[in-house]
Amino acid sequence: MTAIRCKGFQAAGIHSGLKQNGNMDLGLIYSKTPASSAGVFTQNRVTAAPVRITRKRMETGISNAVIVNSGNANCCNGETGFQDALNMAGATARGLELTDNKVLVASTGVIGKRLPIEKIETAVPNLIEALNPDGFMDFAKAIMTTDTVPKLEHRQGRVHDRTYNLVGMAKGSGMIAPNMATMLCFICTDVSIPHPLLRKVLVSAVDKTLNRICIDGDTSTNDTTLILANGQSNVSMDTMGQIEDFQRLLEQLLNSLAKSLVKDGEGVTKCVDIIVKGAMSNQNAHTIANTLATSPLVKTALFGEDANWGRLIAAAGRAGVPIDPDSIDIYFDQAQMTRNSISCGPEAEIQATRALKKPEFSIIMDLNMGEGSASVLTCDFTIDYIKINADYRS
Amino acid sequence: MTAIRCKGFQAAGIHSGLKQNGNMDLGLIYSKTPASSAGVFTQNRVTAAPVRITRKRMETGISNAVIVNSGNANCCNGETGFQDALNMAGATARGLELTDNKVLVASTGVIGKRLPIEKIETAVPNLIEALNPDGFMDFAKAIMTTDTVPKLEHRQGRVHDRTYNLVGMAKGSGMIAPNMATMLCFICTDVSIPHPLLRKVLVSAVDKTLNRICIDGDTSTNDTTLILANGQSNVSMDTMGQIEDFQRLLEQLLNSLAKSLVKDGEGVTKCVDIIVKGAMSNQNAHTIANTLATSPLVKTALFGEDANWGRLIAAAGRAGVPIDPDSIDIYFDQAQMTRNSISCGPEAEIQATRALKKPEFSIIMDLNMGEGSASVLTCDFTIDYIKINADYRS
Repeated sequence: MTAIRCKGFQAAGIHSGLKQNGNMDLGLIYSKTPASSAGVFTQNRVTAAPVRITRKRMETGISNAVIVNSGNANCCNGETGFQDALNMAGATARGLELTDNKVLVASTGVIGKRLPIEKIETAVPNLIEALNPDGFMDFAKAIMTTDTVPKLEHRQGRVHDRTYNLVGMAKGSGMIAPNMATMLCFICTDVSIPHPLLRKVLVSAVDKTLNRICIDGDTSTNDTTLILANGQSNVSMDTMGQIEDFQRLLEQLLNSLAKSLVKDGEGVTKCVDIIVKGAMSNQNAHTIANTLATSPLVKTALFGEDANWGRLIAAAGRAGVPIDPDSIDIYFDQAQMTRNSISCGPEAEIQATRALKKPEFSIIMDLNMGEGSASVLTCDFTIDYIKINADYRS
Repeated sequence: MTAIRCKGFQAAGIHSGLKQNGNMDLGLIYSKTPASSAGVFTQNRVTAAPVRITRKRMETGISNAVIVNSGNANCCNGETGFQDALNMAGATARGLELTDNKVLVASTGVIGKRLPIEKIETAVPNLIEALNPDGFMDFAKAIMTTDTVPKLEHRQGRVHDRTYNLVGMAKGSGMIAPNMATMLCFICTDVSIPHPLLRKVLVSAVDKTLNRICIDGDTSTNDTTLILANGQSNVSMDTMGQIEDFQRLLEQLLNSLAKSLVKDGEGVTKCVDIIVKGAMSNQNAHTIANTLATSPLVKTALFGEDANWGRLIAAAGRAGVPIDPDSIDIYFDQAQMTRNSISCGPEAEIQATRALKKPEFSIIMDLNMGEGSASVLTCDFTIDYIKINADYRS
């Protein structure tokens, strides 16, 4: 396997004492060269202290480092929590000899418990010591909460004879809903790209990937996606074609991360692409796809491998957008299950059930009304999801 | 125990062969005297055939009978399903010597399977034979699906020296969401009250009771609440005071039925009153209460008896209405858990956890912004909910 590197970037992950099981819980990304940077953040009206700070620091469009802890969201801790987040970034800035506003900060974990800031401040020098060009996997591990596998993806692009890199790391795996800047996700790239363009490319790519996944319909107070571009590959985005290539690679990278988030969602056994087409508009299609993707009755039927298409139609009917209740066609992969909202019969159900038994498949709902379409990646609702979330803090 | 009767009404429940376990699956309510009638129906855009027929027949405001089957929703069966529902009501009308439009019809169960109409037509004469003034409990049993107990309530009012009765029967216990005419519910009363006033009283009472409960956030295609008033107690609603008394009794009756629906919700172990106050408006409070009541993360924490108030604040933050994220007070029963969105400490958590261990308790969220308030009755999300709904059709 090729080493996952991104020129001029170093990363690290260590255990600082926030997680009781001894796993890594503190991560750092660092570029000595100041990097053009952009971010998208949770649309929840309640935001964690680090989100408030990082969103503000993003305005300059230039950053050198991102420090992230797992095990504690540092949310709903009032003025103390805000000061703790400033101190977490401040300790990093001092250690790296940067001004404070060049360090971004993110947290993930339980809401409403004070961040053990002394542990973090004590650990920061060791974290900086651990920085190295091959440290991305450790970083990916350090940001995990209920995730069972780290999420790390790498893509390479080429402009003339020069290669450039995109490295992305993300964590899930609950409180995840579409139409938001979901979860934590960090992307490093060694291209040179100015802040406004970088932001535009990021927002567009996130909308097509991370904003189209759903695990439980809840939205975190800490969701953050950041991209840093330090230009160390000596590749600049000079032409529209080069930007389009970069955009495509970024979408591929984020799509892989998004899919791995759903597959590693809490208790998940099925990863299902919900595709709605034939709607009056793309927005209507998206609304219906989201309603299907979050319906507990749909998601429990997926877990039960039950081709219970009546629940799909019932969920579409309550989505709040116009549909013709008598013209819906439903497919499980290629197997057509309904025509004009009526069952295609027992043989169709056998075919549909075959698709449902697979770990990954598609559900296609054709409303037969117009040209609008959208897709959302979702998962099943399982006994293990309940167990994980009933016991989360204990 | 007093016999549950309502003057001039008879009811029955029998097994017609729709449920494979031999339980009762066909119910009938009958008043020889034509009754003033009113109904509220699902707001799902997909509606079952019996809903379409009953909604239409409701327009005359006069009915004599309601026939209901469980085990099959008769939804998404196209023109055939519509004809089956007409025939189900038609067989009843013939047996009772009524014109077709005096018979209302409702169905509940699996969507998208053809109704076994021959079984029903064969059973209708036996069902009519079984009619008797003490038949309400059998009717309540005949409309059950995944319910574990029948829901039957009785209230008596008095005007001068005359007593009148209200008898209500309902069934749950999945696909239940607030802000809808949820589930099936039938009310018989022997007062005399004209159709327009009866409808007004019903809509108002449903809005305060059945529309304020939530089991899983999904909304049925078959939800129907009907009230029949046959005047056989010789009590007329002549004064505003008498109507207010009647309204209050109806609300009490529906509130008891609503609570019993939540307590018997699929897999439920906790019945929790979510009270939001201090909002900018009642509507805002209702939106937030609904968001808390349907959040999988909130509902799994209830199951885990975990005072995870961070999930409550996070859910409020994504509800889509204005909140001040730094001014939220949360109580579990009387135990204050947060002040200004910050934890009140470990002792508060011990008190809160004590409330969570009870089968019924309240969560109060005070937004400290205005005078708006609302409440929604919800339940926990449990391992048994998943098991019931993964295996529903098998």
